[in-house]
Amino acid sequence: MDNYFFNNMLSQQSAKNSLLCVGLDPEYKSLPEVVKKDKYPIFSFNKAIIEATQDIACCYKPQIAHYAALGAEKELELTIQFIKGLDIPVILDAKRGDIGNTSEMYARELFERYDADAVTVNPYFGMDSMEPYLSRSDKTIFILCRTSNPGSANLQNLTLEDGEKLYERVARLAATEWNFNDNVGLVVGATNPIELKRVREIVGEMSLLLPGVGTQGADIEATITANGKGNTIITSSRAILFASPNSNFSEAARAVALKTRNEINRYHQSI
Amino acid sequence: MDNYFFNNMLSQQSAKNSLLCVGLDPEYKSLPEVVKKDKYPIFSFNKAIIEATQDIACCYKPQIAHYAALGAEKELELTIQFIKGLDIPVILDAKRGDIGNTSEMYARELFERYDADAVTVNPYFGMDSMEPYLSRSDKTIFILCRTSNPGSANLQNLTLEDGEKLYERVARLAATEWNFNDNVGLVVGATNPIELKRVREIVGEMSLLLPGVGTQGADIEATITANGKGNTIITSSRAILFASPNSNFSEAARAVALKTRNEINRYHQSI
Repeated sequence: MDNYFFNNMLSQQSAKNSLLCVGLDPEYKSLPEVVKKDKYPIFSFNKAIIEATQDIACCYKPQIAHYAALGAEKELELTIQFIKGLDIPVILDAKRGDIGNTSEMYARELFERYDADAVTVNPYFGMDSMEPYLSRSDKTIFILCRTSNPGSANLQNLTLEDGEKLYERVARLAATEWNFNDNVGLVVGATNPIELKRVREIVGEMSLLLPGVGTQGADIEATITANGKGNTIITSSRAILFASPNSNFSEAARAVALKTRNEINRYHQSI
Repeated sequence: MDNYFFNNMLSQQSAKNSLLCVGLDPEYKSLPEVVKKDKYPIFSFNKAIIEATQDIACCYKPQIAHYAALGAEKELELTIQFIKGLDIPVILDAKRGDIGNTSEMYARELFERYDADAVTVNPYFGMDSMEPYLSRSDKTIFILCRTSNPGSANLQNLTLEDGEKLYERVARLAATEWNFNDNVGLVVGATNPIELKRVREIVGEMSLLLPGVGTQGADIEATITANGKGNTIITSSRAILFASPNSNFSEAARAVALKTRNEINRYHQSI
């Protein structure tokens, strides 16, 4: 497989014995005072978190809204450059979705401007809207399937006339028609082990990105059991980033990341 | 109704006798040479377009990807400030969708940083994900229902077990549960008159934002007939913006905007 993200992420998972992805969702008000005086406080914060977790994280996932809300595009660029300098792959979590010519612009934003290795994409517009991402065989696309928020069932769990649920249809399309370049994965909330198990039945070994561990409260044992043997990336953001509000924030982040990695491995070893 | 966008947009429609919204989706390669030498070429271009169409447009709709792809956030800010200085309302077309705390960040990006009066939002995550927008009774939220791209039927036209289509369910929820602040409208592609007619039957007089006229090829007569009497905003972007590649670009844009406004009115008068 000629896909940088998948290849490198699998190497990192193996070398670090870790399925953990650290989400970089900084909130200015929660930054420790010690970084707030820096020229680029968010980047300083991220850099310290990355340095403290680089031997534990199989990849990093900055969430773009947390930068855009603050006009911190430059700090997002610096963060991604720093991660890539360590040869660790980057998922830029942007969940874009739009019609063709606008999707081209979003793809340019994410892949050219920010140099992301992988992105998250919203499927509501249908396949042609995702073409500018799917056509990039050098990049990886994680399509939203069953999200981790409480209201996700509103639309995603609707039952279709053939008995399939909407998220199941998305999973099936993503694993077949949409995956013509072998570069697709799915986002499935770890908060939904029942749906996660069902998605795994539909898509086989496809890579699944599982948010929801940590602050959102997903149960790691239930998540690992539901996922089974297929490749998975388990993301945690706030529980790691904001483990301590004090100047020891990066050591505290490392401790939580290690604990999370180890807890994942404890259950994963018995699969 | 205490909603700035709806109130002002309706005043503009009445005063200008126009349902036309001009979409501001600049593409750097298509900008006339005459603006490329300016410090802020995209803003210069937009400013000229806005000055040439301000007595015809009931509102403007910048599409954010076209700025983000180029790192032109500053030019988007300047554009929105300029439009608001003319007391014309602004829809910031961003189609965001994410879980709660991230949606809060997107809402901050769109409403605080860019000062948008109205936004477009993707419903795939469900109601709680839209709460940070829906809770803003001073702002207007256009929820994606049936989009204008060819592949939109992939998911949006799936039939649910009770016979309703997914876009119909979105329309029904948007008109009822999701509209607790009377601040919701829907995006329905003008390229789909059959679905537009059906949405109108479901939502009554709710405001509909209809993209697809112009370059995307929607038929204006079919659109107006399908829409019927309910409030509508008809957007056109590329056909107006790029009416001429030469230094007369703004006069050419005005001519196309006028022609489009008049064609809409010709059919609308007989409704």
